[in-house]
Amino acid sequence: MRLALGITYRGTAYHGWQSQAGVASVQQVLEEALAQFAAMPVRVTCAGRTDTGVHGINQVVHLDTSLDRADFSWVRGTNRFLPQDVGVQWCRRVDDGFHARFSARARRYAYVLRESPVRPALESGFVGWVFRPLEASGMREAAAHLIGEHDFSSFRSADCQARSPVKQMHEIRIERHGAFWRFDFEASAFLHHMVRNLMGCLVAVGSGAREPGWMREVLTARDRDVAAPTFAPDGLYFLGPRYDACHGLPDGAAAHDWLPGSVTAGDSAATFP
Amino acid sequence: MRLALGITYRGTAYHGWQSQAGVASVQQVLEEALAQFAAMPVRVTCAGRTDTGVHGINQVVHLDTSLDRADFSWVRGTNRFLPQDVGVQWCRRVDDGFHARFSARARRYAYVLRESPVRPALESGFVGWVFRPLEASGMREAAAHLIGEHDFSSFRSADCQARSPVKQMHEIRIERHGAFWRFDFEASAFLHHMVRNLMGCLVAVGSGAREPGWMREVLTARDRDVAAPTFAPDGLYFLGPRYDACHGLPDGAAAHDWLPGSVTAGDSAATFP
Repeated sequence: MRLALGITYRGTAYHGWQSQAGVASVQQVLEEALAQFAAMPVRVTCAGRTDTGVHGINQVVHLDTSLDRADFSWVRGTNRFLPQDVGVQWCRRVDDGFHARFSARARRYAYVLRESPVRPALESGFVGWVFRPLEASGMREAAAHLIGEHDFSSFRSADCQARSPVKQMHEIRIERHGAFWRFDFEASAFLHHMVRNLMGCLVAVGSGAREPGWMREVLTARDRDVAAPTFAPDGLYFLGPRYDACHGLPDGAAAHDWLPGSVTAGDSAATFP
Repeated sequence: MRLALGITYRGTAYHGWQSQAGVASVQQVLEEALAQFAAMPVRVTCAGRTDTGVHGINQVVHLDTSLDRADFSWVRGTNRFLPQDVGVQWCRRVDDGFHARFSARARRYAYVLRESPVRPALESGFVGWVFRPLEASGMREAAAHLIGEHDFSSFRSADCQARSPVKQMHEIRIERHGAFWRFDFEASAFLHHMVRNLMGCLVAVGSGAREPGWMREVLTARDRDVAAPTFAPDGLYFLGPRYDACHGLPDGAAAHDWLPGSVTAGDSAATFP
């Protein structure tokens, strides 16, 4: 039978999602914990791989198993064997046709940024940092250029393995909450480092170093060299994939609440398109 | 001259505030960083010592020094030598009569609690956890018994060094924000483990294990043995002292924004008295 699981993790201590020899990865600790619970080897396939230091809030994986246990047994049983910075949030039985990656209609990311003269301390590793004041309207104007179907090659790392750089950007939200900025992105899919590269450009506009229209120039250049530097992974959260409702999977939004601005949208909220 | 500094830290990696032989403390890393910046030994006195694993958002210290530097040089210069989970937020010159501890009129703490069937992962170390659903009205009724001047011996650890167990509780706020509960306490001063012991009792009421009126029984018993077990330090934040306005010190509230419910109070907000 095929199961889908929702996973939350703090990426700080891991070399990203994907298993690699010699370094700790989220996939590795998850597969080891599942194998201990199931008393047999377990392989998982995820909705979207994340990089070193990037956090996951509703990462979704699927796995095939012959072990018949109640959903909540999978959750609690696996969590017993996971380190405290990784946790299974939910488990559901799915059709054999469900695929964590290929069934996803869209993916969502959030980036949280602290704007202050001094670096973060309490929240280091969980937020990016800018010491120059940002201005919302310019960033929103720049973000509007990104909505729709585009070739995002300018925001793609050299290591990107995607077959096509053409993706559909559905929505970008930019909100301020006290000393923190929260950026929400939803797209059909994301290229490697795409959100961190977009953040570099949005902050260049927000701090006044670039005009909002520059975002359009960067986009149409299809050249990584014209964009701003890649932003730090610290403030980046994979909020998870979107699937068709027929799969009956939870949104797993509870951990979102922990991010600034999750529960009550601020007065300065703006949504594109 | 005497300086006051505002300090923020993540308590997870430290054996509390106070320097002790053989273990890392926040005071130790701060004094070492200040000494590196000042090129001379520096001793600090804090507003309120915190325990292992407890976080500080606006801890205030004072120090005496002959080094004459601009306020922001102290901030940036010291931060260069601090680990990333400790940071100086501000620096102000103060009268010689100012004392970080004795000038404080009140102290504030917040406790953040996650209510969910599964344990925290992303936010482990930053929140307490309850898997039983909590009910707000009972906890608020119980909290109301604590407002005013009382002998808080029932909530005092055996190691407490305070001269008197009588403290003035000014305010307790209990708010829900999605999957998270936030409890704010303000009192003239707090006994050792007092907030964590109060949390144990409030959760006992909120989960239905005890009636709200039981809090009054515990308070009047003046006996630690009748109270609930001490709650975990993970979700506890020292929000800092309150001083008279004449000292001209910042509130240091920016890092508060990162906690659930900091910027926009939820519909369910309630304040005592």
